[in-house]
Amino acid sequence: MKTSRAAVLTQYEAPLELKEFPLPQAIEPGAALVKVKLAGICGTDVHLWHGQLPIPLPVILGHETVGVIEEMGDGLTHDWTGAPLSVGDRIGWSSSINCNECYYCRTKPQPTRCLKRKAYGISYDCSVAPHLLGGYADYIYLRPGTAIFKIPEELPTEAVVGAGCALVTSLHGAERISVQMGDTVVIQGSGPVGLASLAVAKASGAATIVMLGGPPHRLELAKRFGADVCIDISTTSIEERKTRVLDLSGGFGVDVVLECVGIPEAVVEGVELCRDGGRYLVLGHYGNAGSVAFNPHVITRKQLTVAGSWGFEPRHTNAALKFLARNREQFPFEQLVAKQFPLERAFEALQATASWTTAKSAIAP
Amino acid sequence: MKTSRAAVLTQYEAPLELKEFPLPQAIEPGAALVKVKLAGICGTDVHLWHGQLPIPLPVILGHETVGVIEEMGDGLTHDWTGAPLSVGDRIGWSSSINCNECYYCRTKPQPTRCLKRKAYGISYDCSVAPHLLGGYADYIYLRPGTAIFKIPEELPTEAVVGAGCALVTSLHGAERISVQMGDTVVIQGSGPVGLASLAVAKASGAATIVMLGGPPHRLELAKRFGADVCIDISTTSIEERKTRVLDLSGGFGVDVVLECVGIPEAVVEGVELCRDGGRYLVLGHYGNAGSVAFNPHVITRKQLTVAGSWGFEPRHTNAALKFLARNREQFPFEQLVAKQFPLERAFEALQATASWTTAKSAIAP
Amino acid sequence: MKTSRAAVLTQYEAPLELKEFPLPQAIEPGAALVKVKLAGICGTDVHLWHGQLPIPLPVILGHETVGVIEEMGDGLTHDWTGAPLSVGDRIGWSSSINCNECYYCRTKPQPTRCLKRKAYGISYDCSVAPHLLGGYADYIYLRPGTAIFKIPEELPTEAVVGAGCALVTSLHGAERISVQMGDTVVIQGSGPVGLASLAVAKASGAATIVMLGGPPHRLELAKRFGADVCIDISTTSIEERKTRVLDLSGGFGVDVVLECVGIPEAVVEGVELCRDGGRYLVLGHYGNAGSVAFNPHVITRKQLTVAGSWGFEPRHTNAALKFLARNREQFPFEQLVAKQFPLERAFEALQATASWTTAKSAIAP
Amino acid sequence: MKTSRAAVLTQYEAPLELKEFPLPQAIEPGAALVKVKLAGICGTDVHLWHGQLPIPLPVILGHETVGVIEEMGDGLTHDWTGAPLSVGDRIGWSSSINCNECYYCRTKPQPTRCLKRKAYGISYDCSVAPHLLGGYADYIYLRPGTAIFKIPEELPTEAVVGAGCALVTSLHGAERISVQMGDTVVIQGSGPVGLASLAVAKASGAATIVMLGGPPHRLELAKRFGADVCIDISTTSIEERKTRVLDLSGGFGVDVVLECVGIPEAVVEGVELCRDGGRYLVLGHYGNAGSVAFNPHVITRKQLTVAGSWGFEPRHTNAALKFLARNREQFPFEQLVAKQFPLERAFEALQATASWTTAKSAIAP
Repeated sequence: MKTSRAAVLTQYEAPLELKEFPLPQAIEPGAALVKVKLAGICGTDVHLWHGQLPIPLPVILGHETVGVIEEMGDGLTHDWTGAPLSVGDRIGWSSSINCNECYYCRTKPQPTRCLKRKAYGISYDCSVAPHLLGGYADYIYLRPGTAIFKIPEELPTEAVVGAGCALVTSLHGAERISVQMGDTVVIQGSGPVGLASLAVAKASGAATIVMLGGPPHRLELAKRFGADVCIDISTTSIEERKTRVLDLSGGFGVDVVLECVGIPEAVVEGVELCRDGGRYLVLGHYGNAGSVAFNPHVITRKQLTVAGSWGFEPRHTNAALKFLARNREQFPFEQLVAKQFPLERAFEALQATASWTTAKSAIAP
Repeated sequence: MKTSRAAVLTQYEAPLELKEFPLPQAIEPGAALVKVKLAGICGTDVHLWHGQLPIPLPVILGHETVGVIEEMGDGLTHDWTGAPLSVGDRIGWSSSINCNECYYCRTKPQPTRCLKRKAYGISYDCSVAPHLLGGYADYIYLRPGTAIFKIPEELPTEAVVGAGCALVTSLHGAERISVQMGDTVVIQGSGPVGLASLAVAKASGAATIVMLGGPPHRLELAKRFGADVCIDISTTSIEERKTRVLDLSGGFGVDVVLECVGIPEAVVEGVELCRDGGRYLVLGHYGNAGSVAFNPHVITRKQLTVAGSWGFEPRHTNAALKFLARNREQFPFEQLVAKQFPLERAFEALQATASWTTAKSAIAP
Repeated sequence: MKTSRAAVLTQYEAPLELKEFPLPQAIEPGAALVKVKLAGICGTDVHLWHGQLPIPLPVILGHETVGVIEEMGDGLTHDWTGAPLSVGDRIGWSSSINCNECYYCRTKPQPTRCLKRKAYGISYDCSVAPHLLGGYADYIYLRPGTAIFKIPEELPTEAVVGAGCALVTSLHGAERISVQMGDTVVIQGSGPVGLASLAVAKASGAATIVMLGGPPHRLELAKRFGADVCIDISTTSIEERKTRVLDLSGGFGVDVVLECVGIPEAVVEGVELCRDGGRYLVLGHYGNAGSVAFNPHVITRKQLTVAGSWGFEPRHTNAALKFLARNREQFPFEQLVAKQFPLERAFEALQATASWTTAKSAIAP
Repeated sequence: MKTSRAAVLTQYEAPLELKEFPLPQAIEPGAALVKVKLAGICGTDVHLWHGQLPIPLPVILGHETVGVIEEMGDGLTHDWTGAPLSVGDRIGWSSSINCNECYYCRTKPQPTRCLKRKAYGISYDCSVAPHLLGGYADYIYLRPGTAIFKIPEELPTEAVVGAGCALVTSLHGAERISVQMGDTVVIQGSGPVGLASLAVAKASGAATIVMLGGPPHRLELAKRFGADVCIDISTTSIEERKTRVLDLSGGFGVDVVLECVGIPEAVVEGVELCRDGGRYLVLGHYGNAGSVAFNPHVITRKQLTVAGSWGFEPRHTNAALKFLARNREQFPFEQLVAKQFPLERAFEALQATASWTTAKSAIAP
C-alpha cells in the first residue's frame, strides 16, 4: 500500500509533525490524485497556526499548491476551462468548493460566501479519509467538483505559487472597487496581496501608484512591479504619509485606496487618503483583527464608496493564470518565493513566512 | 426705504433676535427678491444653533424655504428647468450655489463638494449687505446663479417645506446606494431624512421596508408612508432589533440598509443588518458626531458596499418637486410640518424642532 | 402500466395530435413526476408550430406550466430556494436546465446562453423516453437539476401561468436596461411581455409609462396595470406616435424604451422615441424576424445605450413568484389567461393564442 | 490695425481662399487672442468641405489647434484646471462651448448634446466679428467660457495635434463602453479614432487587441501602438475576418468591439464579432452615413450591450493631455501628423487628409 508524507498541524503554535497517510485506494469519479510540486506558505497559514481562525485539528495546511496529476477518477477528462486533462499534466486549482445550492450560491449570488464552502489546506480534518486535503504533503487528493486548471507550459511553477491566493484575491477585489485607466492609487501594504493589487492596478492603467509598506526588500519588489512612489511605513508617521499623498494628488487625495494590510488602524488612515468621491477597498481584513475608533462622518462628508471582497471564485483562478501568462515580464511573481524547503523542513518554511524575513517561502516535497 | 424683519442668530445657544434689515435698493442681474411664505426648521438648524458646525455669526438661519417673487433682476426670465418666471410666482430653490470652477466642480465632478459652496441660511454673515440670505425673515434675496424652481400649483407649500432638504438628500443618496425593485430594506431613523428615504425606497419598489425609529408619532407617519414593519428603538435592544430583522430576512439580513440617524453607533448596528453582499448608505452623518469602535473585518467578510452622500445638487431639487407632485397621496409630506409659528416666535419654532415634540416646525412670517 | 395523454406536434402547421405515453417506471434521483394543472400557451408556441425555430419533432409543447408533485426521485427534498418539497405540493419550475460547465456557464457567465441549454416544451423529442417533457399533457417529468419552486398558497395558478415566461423575461431584461424611479418609459407592445414589462416598470417607480400596442382589450389591460397613456398602433401612424411621445416628454423623448414586439421596424421607431442619452431594450426579438433598414448614426448622435436580453435564469423565476405574490392586486396577471381548454382541445387553444382573439389561452388537462 | 490671415471655406467643394481679417480691437473679459502654432486637419473637415454637415458659410475650419497666448481679456487668469495662465503660454482648448442651461446641460446631463453647443472651426460664420473662430489662420480668438489648457512643456505640439479630437472622442467613448483589464478587443478602423481607441484600450489593460483596418502604413502604426493582430480590410473578406476573430477568441467572439469607421456596414460586421454578452461601441458614426440592413434579433440573442458616444467634454480634453504626457513613449501620437503645410497651402493640406495618402496633415501658419 502506497503512502504519502504530510506536515500536520496537530496543536496550535506547536511544530508541524511529519506523518504518513495511505493514498486512497480508489479515486472517486471526478476526483484526482495529484503529486505536489510546490506548496506556497501563505500569511493565512501563520494565522491558522496561531489558532486565529476556527479550523479542525489535525489539519494539513497548504492552499496554494501546484502539482502533477498522478491518477484521475472516472469522468474527469477536462479542466475547468474545457481543456483536455491527462495524467502527468501540471495543474493548479481553486482552493474552495462551493455547494451550488445555498442562499449565497443561488438566490443572492455571492459564491465566495457559500454557506458550506470548504477549502483545501484549511477546512479538512486529516485524520479522516481521504486524509490528503492540504498542500504540505507529497500528494494531495482533489475531490469531485474541484475547479482544476492546466498550467500553461511557459508559466513557471514558482510564478503560480508566488502569486498564490493573493492574485486571485486582488482580481476579485478589483471587481468590487476597480482601478480605472488614469486613476491615482494608494496601496496600503506590500505583502503578497499588496503586490498583487499593485500588479492589477498597474495593468488596469493606473496613472500613479503610491505604495505604503515595508520592509525595504518588499518595497524594492514594489518598485520592480511598477509602483511610482514607495513610502516605508516603519520610518514615517501617519501624518507624514498623508502629507506625501496629498502633495502627490494636488492636495485632494487619490481616486482609489486599496487596503491590503489587515490592521484596523490602516482603514482610518486610508480613508483620509481618498479624495472626495473616492473609493476604498477593504481587502486585507480576511482575519478578524478587532475594532478601531472610526468616524462614519468621513464617509458622508467625503462621499466615499467603501467595499469589501472575500476570497475568490474559480473564474478568478482562471483569470489569474491568464494574467500571469500575459504579464510575465512586467510582474515576475516568482520573485515572491524567496526560499524553498523540503517537506521535512515544513515547519521551518512556515516560520520563515511568519518572521517576514523573506517575501514568502514554499515547500518543494 | 423698505425693510425686512429677520430672526438672527447672534450667539450660539442664545435666543434668536428679531432684527430689521434694509431691502436691497437694486436687484442685481440674475438675482431676485422673494417674499417668504414658509421657512422650514431643519434639524441642522438646531446643530447650527449649538455651534456644532463652523458658520459665521450673526446669521439668518433657514435653508428650507418657499416664497413668492417680489422683484427680479435683469436677465432672470426662466427657472432652472426653463419655465418662464414672473413676479408673483411661488418658488423654491436649491439652498447652495456652486462655483463651477473648482476641482470638485470640474475635474472630478462631485458638485456637492464644491470648494466654494455657500448655502442660504448657513454660510452668510447677515451684517454684510445684502443681509437677507436666510429663510427666517420676511424677505430673502436670491443671488445670481441660484437654481430657482417654480412650484407646481397643485403642490401645497407645506408639502415642499415638509420634504425640505430631507427629500433632496435622500434622492441624492439613492444615486449612491440605490434601492432596486424587490429589495428588502432597513431604514435607521424616522426623522425627516428617514421618512424621505422611506418614501424613495417605497417608490423604487422595495419589497419589504423595516423602519427602526421613534417616537411613536413618527413611526405612525412611517406606517402611513408605507413601512411594512416599524420597530421602536426606545423599547428594544440592539440584539432584539437584529433578531427581528434577521427573522424577517430568512436569517441573512436585508439587501440595503439606509442610515438616517447621524449617531456613530447606528453604523455598527446597521452593517450587521445587511446580508452578505449587501449595501449600506451612511446618509445621516452630515454632522460630525465623533467616532465609534468599528471592526473593518465585517466589510471584508460580508463583502459589503458602503457609501456616503453629501448634500444635493439642483437636479435633485428638480427631481424632488416632481416626486412630490407625482406621489402626493402616497406620501403626504405636509404632515411633517406639525406646527407653524409667526416670525416673531422663530426661536420658539426652533425649540420645537429641537425638542422633537413635533415632527418638524416652520415659520410663516 | 400507467399512461399520460399529451398533445403532440408531429408536423409543422398541422393539428396537434393527442397521443398516449407510458409514465416512467422509475423516477431518477433528483427528478419528479408532476401532474399538470395548467399549461400556458405562449406566443413562442405559435412560432414553434410554424417551424420558425429549429426544434426536434415530434414534440410536446408547453413551457409555462404549473403542476402538482405526483412522485419524487431520491434526494429531491427541497425546492430551489431551500423550502421542503412533498408529494402534493403545487409547483412551478424554470423551463431550462443549464450544463454549468460550458464557456457561457463558467468563463463569461451568461447562463441564459449555455451552449447545452435544453428547455421543456421545446427541445425534447417526445418519441424518446422519458417522453413527457412538455406541458401540454396530463403529466410532465422534471429531470434532475430542474429548478423547482413551491408556489405560495395565496397565489392562484392562473396568475402564475398568466405571467408565464413573459414576467421572467421582463425581470431579466430589467437587469440589462433598468427602469429607475422617476424615469419616463415607452413600452412597445401590449402582448404578455409588454404587459409584464409594464408591471415591472411600474413597480420600479416609473414616472410616466406610455404603452404603444393593441388591440383595445389589451390596452385596457395595460390601463389596469397602470399605463398612463395608451396609444393604439392600429389607428395611429409612426409619425403620430412620435409626436405624442415627444409632446409627453418636453419634446426630447423618454428615458427608457422597452421593445416587446419582435418586429424589426419597431426598433427603428423606438430609438427615435428615446431622449439623447436614453436607453433601449431589445427584449421582444426572441425569434429571428429578419432585418430592417437601420441607421447606426442615431446611436452615436443620441448617445444611446441599447441592450438585449435572452431568456431567464432560475433566480428570475424565484423573483417572479415573489413579484406576483407581492403585487397581486396591482397586477392581476390571471386576467391574461382569457380562456382555458381541456387537453383534447389543445390545438384549439393554440389557435386561440395564434389568432390574438384572446389575451392568452391555457390548457387545463 | 493688425490683421490675421485665414484659409476660408466660402463654397462647398471649392478651394479654400486665403483672406485677411482684422484682429479684435479689444479682448472681452474672459476671452483670449491666440497665435496659432499648429492646426490639425481632421477627417471631419473633409466632410464639412463636402457639405455633409449643416454649417454656416463662409467658415474658417480647424478644430484641432495648438497656439500661444497673445493677449488675455480681464479675468482670464487660470486655465480650466486652475493652473495660472500668462501671455506666451502654449495652450490647447476644448473645441466646443456649452450653454450650461439647457435640458441636456442640466436636467438629463448629456453635456455633449447641449442644445446650443458651438464649436470652433465648425459653427461660426467668419464674416461676422470677431471672425477668427477657426484654426486655419494666423490667430484664433477664444471666446469667454472656452475651456483652455496649458500644455505641459515636455509634450510636443505635434503629439497634441496628432491626438486631435480623436483621443478625446475615444476617452469619452471609453466611459460608455469601457475596456476592462483582461478583455479581448476588436477595433474596427485604423484612422485617428481607431488608433486613439487602440491606445486607450491598450492602456486599460486589454489582453488581446485585433485591429481591422488599412492601408498598411496605418496598420504599421497600429502595431507600433500595440495591436496584437492587424488585419487589412482591403485584402480580406468579411467572412475571413470573422473566421480570424473567432479563431482568436475560442470560437466565441471578443468581449468588446469598438467601431471607429463610420460606415454602416461595419456595424453589421462588428456585432457578429462580439461574444454573447459582449459590448459594442458605435463611436465612428459622427456623420450620418445612411442606413444598412440590420437584424435586431442579434442584440437579443447575443445579449449585447451597444452604446454610442458623441463628442467630448472639457474633462476629456484634460484627461487626454494627461494621457499623452503619461504615455508618450508607448503611444507616439506625433507620428500621426505626417506632413505640415504653411497656411497659404491650407487647401493642399486638406486634400492630403482627404486623399488618405498620409496619416493626417496639419497647418503650421
